Amino acid sequence: MSYRVGIIGGTGYTGSELSRLLCRHPDIELAALTSRSNAGKDVASVHGFLRGYTDIRFTESISETKDLDLVMVATPFGVAMDEVPALRERGIKCIDLSGDYRLKDASLYAEWYGKEHTDPEGLSEAVFGLPELFRDGIRGADLVANPGCYATSAILAIAPLMKSGLVFGDVFVDGKSGTSGAGMTPSPRLHHPTCGESVIPYKVGTHRHQPEIEMAVDMFAGGRTDATFVPHLVPIVRGIISSCYFKFKKDASQEDVDAVYEKQYGAERFVHYVPEPSIRDVVGSNHAQVGSKAMGGKAVVFGVLDNLVKGASGQAVQNMNLMLGLPEADGLDFPGLGV
Amino acid sequence: MSYRVGIIGGTGYTGSELSRLLCRHPDIELAALTSRSNAGKDVASVHGFLRGYTDIRFTESISETKDLDLVMVATPFGVAMDEVPALRERGIKCIDLSGDYRLKDASLYAEWYGKEHTDPEGLSEAVFGLPELFRDGIRGADLVANPGCYATSAILAIAPLMKSGLVFGDVFVDGKSGTSGAGMTPSPRLHHPTCGESVIPYKVGTHRHQPEIEMAVDMFAGGRTDATFVPHLVPIVRGIISSCYFKFKKDASQEDVDAVYEKQYGAERFVHYVPEPSIRDVVGSNHAQVGSKAMGGKAVVFGVLDNLVKGASGQAVQNMNLMLGLPEADGLDFPGLGV
Amino acid sequence: MSYRVGIIGGTGYTGSELSRLLCRHPDIELAALTSRSNAGKDVASVHGFLRGYTDIRFTESISETKDLDLVMVATPFGVAMDEVPALRERGIKCIDLSGDYRLKDASLYAEWYGKEHTDPEGLSEAVFGLPELFRDGIRGADLVANPGCYATSAILAIAPLMKSGLVFGDVFVDGKSGTSGAGMTPSPRLHHPTCGESVIPYKVGTHRHQPEIEMAVDMFAGGRTDATFVPHLVPIVRGIISSCYFKFKKDASQEDVDAVYEKQYGAERFVHYVPEPSIRDVVGSNHAQVGSKAMGGKAVVFGVLDNLVKGASGQAVQNMNLMLGLPEADGLDFPGLGV
Amino acid sequence: MSYRVGIIGGTGYTGSELSRLLCRHPDIELAALTSRSNAGKDVASVHGFLRGYTDIRFTESISETKDLDLVMVATPFGVAMDEVPALRERGIKCIDLSGDYRLKDASLYAEWYGKEHTDPEGLSEAVFGLPELFRDGIRGADLVANPGCYATSAILAIAPLMKSGLVFGDVFVDGKSGTSGAGMTPSPRLHHPTCGESVIPYKVGTHRHQPEIEMAVDMFAGGRTDATFVPHLVPIVRGIISSCYFKFKKDASQEDVDAVYEKQYGAERFVHYVPEPSIRDVVGSNHAQVGSKAMGGKAVVFGVLDNLVKGASGQAVQNMNLMLGLPEADGLDFPGLGV
Repeated sequence: MSYRVGIIGGTGYTGSELSRLLCRHPDIELAALTSRSNAGKDVASVHGFLRGYTDIRFTESISETKDLDLVMVATPFGVAMDEVPALRERGIKCIDLSGDYRLKDASLYAEWYGKEHTDPEGLSEAVFGLPELFRDGIRGADLVANPGCYATSAILAIAPLMKSGLVFGDVFVDGKSGTSGAGMTPSPRLHHPTCGESVIPYKVGTHRHQPEIEMAVDMFAGGRTDATFVPHLVPIVRGIISSCYFKFKKDASQEDVDAVYEKQYGAERFVHYVPEPSIRDVVGSNHAQVGSKAMGGKAVVFGVLDNLVKGASGQAVQNMNLMLGLPEADGLDFPGLGV
Repeated sequence: MSYRVGIIGGTGYTGSELSRLLCRHPDIELAALTSRSNAGKDVASVHGFLRGYTDIRFTESISETKDLDLVMVATPFGVAMDEVPALRERGIKCIDLSGDYRLKDASLYAEWYGKEHTDPEGLSEAVFGLPELFRDGIRGADLVANPGCYATSAILAIAPLMKSGLVFGDVFVDGKSGTSGAGMTPSPRLHHPTCGESVIPYKVGTHRHQPEIEMAVDMFAGGRTDATFVPHLVPIVRGIISSCYFKFKKDASQEDVDAVYEKQYGAERFVHYVPEPSIRDVVGSNHAQVGSKAMGGKAVVFGVLDNLVKGASGQAVQNMNLMLGLPEADGLDFPGLGV
Repeated sequence: MSYRVGIIGGTGYTGSELSRLLCRHPDIELAALTSRSNAGKDVASVHGFLRGYTDIRFTESISETKDLDLVMVATPFGVAMDEVPALRERGIKCIDLSGDYRLKDASLYAEWYGKEHTDPEGLSEAVFGLPELFRDGIRGADLVANPGCYATSAILAIAPLMKSGLVFGDVFVDGKSGTSGAGMTPSPRLHHPTCGESVIPYKVGTHRHQPEIEMAVDMFAGGRTDATFVPHLVPIVRGIISSCYFKFKKDASQEDVDAVYEKQYGAERFVHYVPEPSIRDVVGSNHAQVGSKAMGGKAVVFGVLDNLVKGASGQAVQNMNLMLGLPEADGLDFPGLGV
Repeated sequence: MSYRVGIIGGTGYTGSELSRLLCRHPDIELAALTSRSNAGKDVASVHGFLRGYTDIRFTESISETKDLDLVMVATPFGVAMDEVPALRERGIKCIDLSGDYRLKDASLYAEWYGKEHTDPEGLSEAVFGLPELFRDGIRGADLVANPGCYATSAILAIAPLMKSGLVFGDVFVDGKSGTSGAGMTPSPRLHHPTCGESVIPYKVGTHRHQPEIEMAVDMFAGGRTDATFVPHLVPIVRGIISSCYFKFKKDASQEDVDAVYEKQYGAERFVHYVPEPSIRDVVGSNHAQVGSKAMGGKAVVFGVLDNLVKGASGQAVQNMNLMLGLPEADGLDFPGLGV
């Protein structure tokens, strides 16, 4: 049996990555891909890498397509909260890859996104879609907020240690992201001569993933996390590493820290606690790696993933599998590039 | 039914890429991976991206493993010609990814590889493993010489036009390769400060893929190709583009050229004739793209692929599928990364 | 004694590179820098690397500044031909870094730039500013057309061999340029996720440097050059290598070729004939390198330079020095970065 | 009057960068460059970018050269402490660019460098060569320990705030360095396929610049700094950004922080406190930039420089100028590349 899935926003990087994953998913029919700018065109004529993998065309609006089981929204923020209520009324499950449903508190949304939330009811019902931490909630959900790329890498690294009680609530998150995380719209910062031989801090203290990290860690770990998040653009196309700095309440050993993460992730298919996390090991795949080093009363924990897969579209497919009752790794069970 | 496949030389880039592909191939059991330096170790402890995908260990020698149906040799040149004869005697089919069996003429081998060939009989029987041009021969073969990465990109671009008779035999091949094509051994040229912000011509007029290009094009197209091959190292990890320059015998139009390539590749699963070939469209996949531009009595034809997949290990799997009577795209039927 | 120099178009890469060079030139006062978007702002507040090196502000128009000896135009094409006539009438020498005065033939300009030339008289008087080939003309000129970046690299490589009579007139020029050559305006092709891990051919057969190469080589070498120019974008910020492919009329040796270039460039300060030309050796400097390899009736000649220095602003300063009677290397006599 | 300067270790990156700077220094004669591997060869034949800028040859040993005023040691650690005592006995001033004289405490040296220090007397007399913080001591010194590249970037960022008393002593230093910082010897980590599309943490908690940062900050600021230093390799050739994370003792404003740095660096030629520090603004130059952001009881301070110039050879020249009584900016007064 095959589920019919539609994507709102099929032109951008997360939308095209969703198509790339869904077009070879064993139980999914990619039924619709919307794009205002490309409506009417063959998807494979716009995304050349899909040549031979799909023959559908972009449509103007998701409402043109009948009998959808699930819709993913891969647009900039502000669109999902307008589209999702009607879809849910039609009984269609929704996964939002934009930030519209991540911050549970509508006033936080207004503060960080600069806009009133138009679907506060949906907001309160949405489940935060990080399967390794919130799997049970996702299974029963009909609206999932897919986490941000930086946020996923940081939350996977931070949450277990915060829950362990070994560390204070202050955490410094030094994020380093490949450029595809910033989307497909050209801009001065993403212009190759600007960023191709540089490392550029940006949105220091104002990036929207900061409250998302705090909220998700607190939901999982209890207590009150105070995260200072500083993102940096690095000249790679895919990949994120978040280096998270903690202070122990009382000195803890490497073994103490190892025990925390091994317990948390030992049985996971896509998150691995390893001695030396590596972007190249996970790039192109839904796998993430976490690694740590305890030293003299402090610790650093690294969270590593491909921002377009485990940091966006791959995780959305993982959430979809859970929501539809499919095996969690369906369509995602392949290793990273390695080289 | 599952075939048992072994790999000689499992540490290097082509060996690890073979494991990456074979570990999720539906009809193959990855039965052996040899490595002198890593013998006894878990493969996944050396190749972190294979964590969860294989539990085999490196062995010292391929002879330790019983009941192999096919062996791939992914070592530097000079090893395969010593190993292959014994394997074939045991009835094991072989694919050589090194250069040992590519040049049909043993004296050419001695000239370009600086070594006497120790298996001239195998050399004369080996089939050149470029499926889109020599599919029938590969199907019946028990020894296949897997083409070089540059050579594959150039031959796919050159052969059809040379066969068409539209162009003179002189062709200039300006190859540009990502650094993974040079293998995993550190060297001054591959040192990041040297190559990370440069484009470096090397082995000008002395690269071993030059006679390979000429030989393969001639086998396919007849006549006498005179290729001038100049490889350049570019600061990307994966990907090759070979820009091939021709002179028309008499002026030909873009339509004439298009007709040649559409006829040749129109029905292929992995080689696509497209208006704007793109490395990003094929990276991470077994797909290759060819594009052309005719202009004022001259033409340039581009051949684009991922040097580790269609340029090495992916093409080896494609050859293996043909040799074993499996569907040609088995284990390879996924799109490139796109971004 | 100090000459007062103004720059029209001080925001873009060639304009800012001109300021970088002129602010420490021993005989020049940087008197004006125009910018429509930044008029009124401190130059150093826009170009942070000039902090401490200049205290002038951007002005709206060059006519606001008195007593200029020389003006450089560093705008997109189409501006210079409107500005230059009035400047020359005021007795101000001009160097145009855009393409407006390069193609001697107004109809060629119209064909390649898509616009009627509005200063055909200036066009016929302008001297092509490649000092190593046209030094005497530049000395006496009051209007110099500064060559394109690709064109400089290719002409330096091609002209001597073409003049030698050893080769046929057909030459294939495979150009590879860093991204700063495309200017500071963000665009999809220059977007890091697009070009950061790729090599992208563009404007194949339609790039404006193609007729420029042919014209300049012919002016220097006589005869009729037929250049096929294919530019490729490579993921480096600064640097060009043009690989130029020739066929010998009758077989020539490496020594024959060496003799041609050693004679041409042996006494030059900024152009060096070397065994292995290297982008890193010249990056950040006005030096260029040329290298060659003869092989079996064919030859490849490489031309290597920093596209913003010898390929644009450095060469403009070199031309300025000649026009003003200053030592040719003034303000330019420093080595490349090396690493 | 011209001083005669020699360099021990002229093959590596810091040695060749020293030659690049000294060959156009107005008051210096580059009198000797030693190299075991290149002894007897023309320097310009090994470092192609110096063609035309020097005609000296590499020598085997510094003792072959007479009448030296100052010697710089640019070898790996362990060599300087054997060479420096004899040089100082001959009355030659010394600057050590390796780590031999940085840690004032011989037992710390033994701990971090794994070797007994053989010149403890020199160690106690050596001055830490960071001019913006220790200028007076450097002026009178005859032995200067040139700081490490990461250390310089971090100390410039940390020391003023630590001295201000606004922050606690715990500081997390997240360093990100270009690959030239690791030297010219090829290694698996510096191999382009490994690092070219990745960000790699290394020597976590064990890097030798950690005690150097703590020592230098404490010398300048008093008190007891507890730095946690985590270096990351990023795929750029030149450039470092160290992101330093602090917690305020009581909440401080951006203005409070600005006042600290403006007072410290307002009059400096080479260190600039700016709103948005940028690697591209300083690359190729001796300039460094510091920037900060205060947010909710925490602060991040960035230190940015070119690891081979202000992080090594440029700073050594700056120290040399001070030691010889020359203008501090001699031979160094040029802006960064910008693009």
